[in-house]
Amino acid sequence: MSRFWSPLVRELVPYVPGEQPRMANQVKLNTNENPFGPSPKVIEAIRSEVGENLRLYPDPEGLKLKQALASYHGVEPGQIFLGNGSDEVLAHIFQGLFQHGEPVLFPDVTYSFYPVYCGLYGIEGRPVPLNEKFEIDVEDYSQPNGGVIFPNPNAPTGRYLPLEAVEQIIAANPDRVVVVDEAYVDFGGQTAITLVNRYPNLLVSQTLSKARSLAGLRVGFAVGHRDLIEGLERIKDSFNSYPLDRLALAGAVAAYEDEAWFEETRQAVMGERQRLTAELESLGFEVLPSKANFVFTRHPLHSGEVLSQSLREQGIIVRHFRKARIEEFLRITIGREDQNDALLKALRNILGR
Amino acid sequence: MSRFWSPLVRELVPYVPGEQPRMANQVKLNTNENPFGPSPKVIEAIRSEVGENLRLYPDPEGLKLKQALASYHGVEPGQIFLGNGSDEVLAHIFQGLFQHGEPVLFPDVTYSFYPVYCGLYGIEGRPVPLNEKFEIDVEDYSQPNGGVIFPNPNAPTGRYLPLEAVEQIIAANPDRVVVVDEAYVDFGGQTAITLVNRYPNLLVSQTLSKARSLAGLRVGFAVGHRDLIEGLERIKDSFNSYPLDRLALAGAVAAYEDEAWFEETRQAVMGERQRLTAELESLGFEVLPSKANFVFTRHPLHSGEVLSQSLREQGIIVRHFRKARIEEFLRITIGREDQNDALLKALRNILGR
Repeated sequence: MSRFWSPLVRELVPYVPGEQPRMANQVKLNTNENPFGPSPKVIEAIRSEVGENLRLYPDPEGLKLKQALASYHGVEPGQIFLGNGSDEVLAHIFQGLFQHGEPVLFPDVTYSFYPVYCGLYGIEGRPVPLNEKFEIDVEDYSQPNGGVIFPNPNAPTGRYLPLEAVEQIIAANPDRVVVVDEAYVDFGGQTAITLVNRYPNLLVSQTLSKARSLAGLRVGFAVGHRDLIEGLERIKDSFNSYPLDRLALAGAVAAYEDEAWFEETRQAVMGERQRLTAELESLGFEVLPSKANFVFTRHPLHSGEVLSQSLREQGIIVRHFRKARIEEFLRITIGREDQNDALLKALRNILGR
Repeated sequence: MSRFWSPLVRELVPYVPGEQPRMANQVKLNTNENPFGPSPKVIEAIRSEVGENLRLYPDPEGLKLKQALASYHGVEPGQIFLGNGSDEVLAHIFQGLFQHGEPVLFPDVTYSFYPVYCGLYGIEGRPVPLNEKFEIDVEDYSQPNGGVIFPNPNAPTGRYLPLEAVEQIIAANPDRVVVVDEAYVDFGGQTAITLVNRYPNLLVSQTLSKARSLAGLRVGFAVGHRDLIEGLERIKDSFNSYPLDRLALAGAVAAYEDEAWFEETRQAVMGERQRLTAELESLGFEVLPSKANFVFTRHPLHSGEVLSQSLREQGIIVRHFRKARIEEFLRITIGREDQNDALLKALRNILGR
């Protein structure tokens, strides 16, 4: 605490990201990174952008990337907002598109950055309990609010809400912005981007950190009605004119030019998810149905905290949250086959199987 | 205007960055980019970081870069804050280290993003008039305030405040944070980083976009007392855990490992600044003394607006501000010798010399 901090800073409870271990030889299954690298075309595109031109500012509008995303998703470039990772996009959404003074609704078990953004911008966040199966109940989102946000699939549960149910939430809130945070949608879900031209209150955010395997490059975006995008652009242009660097812009464009790579790698992740789920169940774990690149799982006889610690002692890092309702769960990123095998082997050691 | 915008967005007056023309063959002297590219060691460091590891998040703390900067500037890594360009650093400073509710002081002619940040965070900004020579008068910064910020050298004037005068402003405000924005300090100024261990209220921000020639990579930082840095980290961790991507981190570290390149290129810029100033004066221009990589200049017989437009018609882009006190001035970035020659030739055409 310092007398030089603004009153806001004194009250802030920052987000705690998953650990980025600096040790080698660990099996890192804690931050939902893609086990496969980005497309070779992405590597090539970035390499050819690395040069003397780094002396020049990037395009502040990121027009080429907006065009690539618009073309890929069947919308107009003016319906796309770009950010330095989807976290930045989400921050701007909280500041710019929610009605402060009214509570913003999100699930009680969800991405733990949402309440942090509420703190950062002086917004009341109202957690809406998931049902006992950790599912979103659509009817809970009809109460008065200043905006609605939820991930689909949800994190850290992995549970997916079918598009019809998503649409019900959007339709129930015509005067408020409903944000569908689709960080994990490419691992088996259907995007709500197909609905943006019918609902002016719908904003869909996505990231290139997961299915596009570019967590190290920091690119996220949102898609919605032009009015929503313009609101976000006003925030962005009052914060940082150039949030995406030249290499991120070049790499991101190329990521949408290699559909074969995208398809192959996401199918591999989904295949491993199926295998890992079955293996975990055979070890007695309960595994929530997941359409993300992670599973959320608990064992009836072993505490989440102890399991997480025991795995760490064997060099395997998973994510454990000390939070109400989910303290017995582990969130395990789907790794490569050999990483998942290492995880399973370590779990068998722990369980004595 | 949209009913979905938060009240804040409706009131915002965003910053307008210098144009990034998409046409080739223009002489671009409008956004103070370095005419020389980054060090070949930077290019090499980035190239070797481009690969499969882009699937992994970057180090959220940027520790290696903090170590490089700390070692370079003779401080501790815990005294360094990193951002996605210095604009992001400045935004966090306005949100986190100024006392909102009291006016933040900055010069009336200065970086035009400062009043925008005030708007973004609901802070009153109080412009303090520069004197008739466009100099900062130190005594003007003794009035009650919620914080003080000024660039040194100032932009767009290029005028430099000697370190003793900077120190007077810091010493006059022991209960408020004084921010010295040193985006341009490496072109002939002395950094105030040497004072941070004596003044717990001093924060110095710098960028890699100018003297380090990495505008396209987006890296900025601030140096100060650990308490100030901790306040900024709390904001950052409530906004975006990973503001710097892997390539930016790698390139930025390498930029501090090639002192010879840095020295050679900044000397070349300063040499060209001297030559350009003399040539402009011989054409009848008044040129403010500059320690930046640009000059701020006006002609007694030709309007700034017309000169700017006439240069554009000859393919030369400079910056002109339609603002009180400076509407007759042009801000001209120091280019390579051939670019400066092209500028001078075009001006001679316009003036009929």
